[in-house]
Amino acid sequence: MQLAYSAEEICSIVNPQRMAGATTETVRDIASLSSAATGDLSFLAASKYKAEVGGTKASVVLLPLDYAGGPQPNQLFLFVEQPSLALAKLCARIEQSLWPKPPAGIHPSAHVAAGAQISPHATIGPLCVVEEGVKIGDGTVLIGSVHVGRGAQIGEQCLIMPHGVIGASCVIHNRVRLAGGVVIGSDGFGYEFVKGRHLKVPQIGIVVIEDDVEIGANTTIDRARFSRTVIGEGTKIDNLVQVGHNVIIGKHCILCAQVGISGSATLEDYVVLGGQAGVGGHITLRKGTKAGGQTGVAFDTEPGSFINGTPAIPYMLERRLQVLHQKLPDLFKRVEYLESEIKKTSAAGE
Amino acid sequence: MQLAYSAEEICSIVNPQRMAGATTETVRDIASLSSAATGDLSFLAASKYKAEVGGTKASVVLLPLDYAGGPQPNQLFLFVEQPSLALAKLCARIEQSLWPKPPAGIHPSAHVAAGAQISPHATIGPLCVVEEGVKIGDGTVLIGSVHVGRGAQIGEQCLIMPHGVIGASCVIHNRVRLAGGVVIGSDGFGYEFVKGRHLKVPQIGIVVIEDDVEIGANTTIDRARFSRTVIGEGTKIDNLVQVGHNVIIGKHCILCAQVGISGSATLEDYVVLGGQAGVGGHITLRKGTKAGGQTGVAFDTEPGSFINGTPAIPYMLERRLQVLHQKLPDLFKRVEYLESEIKKTSAAGE
Amino acid sequence: MQLAYSAEEICSIVNPQRMAGATTETVRDIASLSSAATGDLSFLAASKYKAEVGGTKASVVLLPLDYAGGPQPNQLFLFVEQPSLALAKLCARIEQSLWPKPPAGIHPSAHVAAGAQISPHATIGPLCVVEEGVKIGDGTVLIGSVHVGRGAQIGEQCLIMPHGVIGASCVIHNRVRLAGGVVIGSDGFGYEFVKGRHLKVPQIGIVVIEDDVEIGANTTIDRARFSRTVIGEGTKIDNLVQVGHNVIIGKHCILCAQVGISGSATLEDYVVLGGQAGVGGHITLRKGTKAGGQTGVAFDTEPGSFINGTPAIPYMLERRLQVLHQKLPDLFKRVEYLESEIKKTSAAGE
Repeated sequence: MQLAYSAEEICSIVNPQRMAGATTETVRDIASLSSAATGDLSFLAASKYKAEVGGTKASVVLLPLDYAGGPQPNQLFLFVEQPSLALAKLCARIEQSLWPKPPAGIHPSAHVAAGAQISPHATIGPLCVVEEGVKIGDGTVLIGSVHVGRGAQIGEQCLIMPHGVIGASCVIHNRVRLAGGVVIGSDGFGYEFVKGRHLKVPQIGIVVIEDDVEIGANTTIDRARFSRTVIGEGTKIDNLVQVGHNVIIGKHCILCAQVGISGSATLEDYVVLGGQAGVGGHITLRKGTKAGGQTGVAFDTEPGSFINGTPAIPYMLERRLQVLHQKLPDLFKRVEYLESEIKKTSAAGE
Repeated sequence: MQLAYSAEEICSIVNPQRMAGATTETVRDIASLSSAATGDLSFLAASKYKAEVGGTKASVVLLPLDYAGGPQPNQLFLFVEQPSLALAKLCARIEQSLWPKPPAGIHPSAHVAAGAQISPHATIGPLCVVEEGVKIGDGTVLIGSVHVGRGAQIGEQCLIMPHGVIGASCVIHNRVRLAGGVVIGSDGFGYEFVKGRHLKVPQIGIVVIEDDVEIGANTTIDRARFSRTVIGEGTKIDNLVQVGHNVIIGKHCILCAQVGISGSATLEDYVVLGGQAGVGGHITLRKGTKAGGQTGVAFDTEPGSFINGTPAIPYMLERRLQVLHQKLPDLFKRVEYLESEIKKTSAAGE
Repeated sequence: MQLAYSAEEICSIVNPQRMAGATTETVRDIASLSSAATGDLSFLAASKYKAEVGGTKASVVLLPLDYAGGPQPNQLFLFVEQPSLALAKLCARIEQSLWPKPPAGIHPSAHVAAGAQISPHATIGPLCVVEEGVKIGDGTVLIGSVHVGRGAQIGEQCLIMPHGVIGASCVIHNRVRLAGGVVIGSDGFGYEFVKGRHLKVPQIGIVVIEDDVEIGANTTIDRARFSRTVIGEGTKIDNLVQVGHNVIIGKHCILCAQVGISGSATLEDYVVLGGQAGVGGHITLRKGTKAGGQTGVAFDTEPGSFINGTPAIPYMLERRLQVLHQKLPDLFKRVEYLESEIKKTSAAGE
């Protein structure tokens, strides 16, 4: 990053409710309170770091309205309702200046089929392939080397990073963000076992990705056997996640990296899955279910469940069982002792 | 999907042994019995759904020969030996009409090295790179943006989706289907630890993929250190699977998504691995071994084994241990009670 | 592989300290001692295979200096300090001849932005995209279809395989090797939960990859929220690994396939993670920590720890607990027996 923001520019972006102190430094980087140096901007995101504000060397600090201390010399405190949101706002501005949106239009090296309907306000970057019947909406950007299959539809203001694949007939709504190497609409994994061989079941359904979804690098979303695989509005999916065919994911879910969802599973709204968690086929995770990392979910869950382990059980129970599991050596000894005592008792009783 | 098949067209494709009823509807979609609406085709794939046939709104229903009930008004029942196979046949036809095979020939934007031997009946789509010494057989299709390394050989009737990488010297037989973003022939993960550094062991072997193999999106298959990594005939591999160097996979295996196979492991024929399962290096899984999802296989297995857990043990034992594991809180209480009783007995005996 | 090396050529490459026997065969392949045939070169890599040397059919065998036996007729023994290193040297030579480095220069089909600084000794293969402000050093090779984002810097003698993505502003040092489909600099997975929606936290940091790092196929490394995600010198990362934002990985670490590292975790030097292991966010693994496959690391470790299981605990303890876990059916029976004995004792005492 090569930033250069004056204190005034920072103020105009984060729009603080109150200020204290002043600095002549230009902000050139962002850092945590403890690692910040002169010229950095820092922030108090969680009250547990409050003690670090007094000693930070940051030139500008974003603080919550109720922070009581004052700045050091040549240091500017900006008081805002939520420092992390103010920071996000600042970073969004920085992002735009670092990597500005490319101009609209179709790069001469892109291959766009005749009859594809590309908005004049969309950007088709170098070496993209856009097949027949594709529609792409206003403000959508394909950075480069993206493949959009026959009849796929992409809405407005989407951002598709290099080497993404949008399979034939798939539908992507608005403000969707796909990271590098994403594959949308790969065939579902379906076979019939006939005479010792796995016969392919053609996968003729599609994938629908609703508004404001974000999908991480090299993640794969299979098309439905028939009908639709759905990623609901506002859901965020991390890198290297697998979503099987006919999976229905609700709104505002979080799937951390390397999660795997087997075919025909249903995730209702606000489900959160930790990294490397797996969900079995045809399972339903009710609204707000949370699962820890590496959890293996084999059964339907109740709304608001918090589960852990393989097979997944309620989180607090799983933690308790882990504690007891680690006491097994002791338990075996205790049982051995009891056995020797019983032997004595029996011997004495004879 | 935008389908439009008359009842007559459906009959000519699935060729039923018997029919009952009739419909004037055009089939426009496929759906499960319970979710189907007028204009949909549905099917009875497993007898547990038999009760749903009576109430389905589907206009056409594929049923097994022994199904006893009759159709509703404006509903057509088609009786076939295996409804799921009949459906597969129908879907294959739909697939062809939705996404017809592109015409043979080399797209002008593809980069094919002089001397590469491309069948005139093969299709090299836009923006593919085909290096020196490559051979590609009749009817094989590279959809677009596929990279085929120096000296690789691809047989007949293969389908390679966008952004696939076929590494140098690798050999792919016939009717192989590779999903988007597959990497075949990446370097095996081999190093010698010398003087505090990991020295690369060059990986000069190849990958051989036999007939009728299918490999899922963003899956990676490493080339051998020397000799060959082999994927046997008819084996099906899902998305995001990792196959290490010198792995030998037999015929008609099933590897679900996110499985990882460490270097030099051997899977005999008909092995089935659930999602996210891992197999250790130099392990042999004998014919027909089945492993549950997230299983970690650390030892060789017997033919026909069904294993689960990490480290993997026989499935029924693993299930039983899980049940006992969940009874640990009770067991600890029971041992405490025994201890208090023994104490009393000892005290009484003194 | 199509090799053809005379015994003399082999000698000139591995430079043996001592020889025994002779062969008239041309070396056409490399194989293990037990599987080698006439015309193959083999080697004794570990003393446990010593008994196989006597019966091997290999025409040339690399042996450690202290191996006592002698060759068969038409067989050449080459004695070297470390056979595996001698083999690596030979394989490196073979690699060069099989897949020679392409000539320097920019392929006419590549799209290189005006002002990008490409060394005249670098190779930009077909259909690469190199955006504004990029710098690429001497001897670096982009095989083809690689996307290098705005302002990224790549050092000298790097090798980047097809379909790699180097994100904007990321920095790659020297002799780095990136396999097919790698994504460097995808957005970190960061959101603020505001009014029922996940608000994106822009990720404006970068990824820094130090000298001699190797990264496997379809692996993803997220850019930092701000500041840097770092992969330390000499670290080797296998396929399909996920490295979250702001992760700091030290020097000479080994991350096996499908490992996942959550955001802001720190791995000190010489950490080794088995396949499919997961590391929680903000965790520190101290120098030399080793974790088994599928381990789930939830807490900081001590230097030199060897851990296993989920949640991870010391390896030997985890093994012992596994053994006791498998004795649970017996333990439950023993407790039942004790309960019946206690009952008798109590009854007798009344």
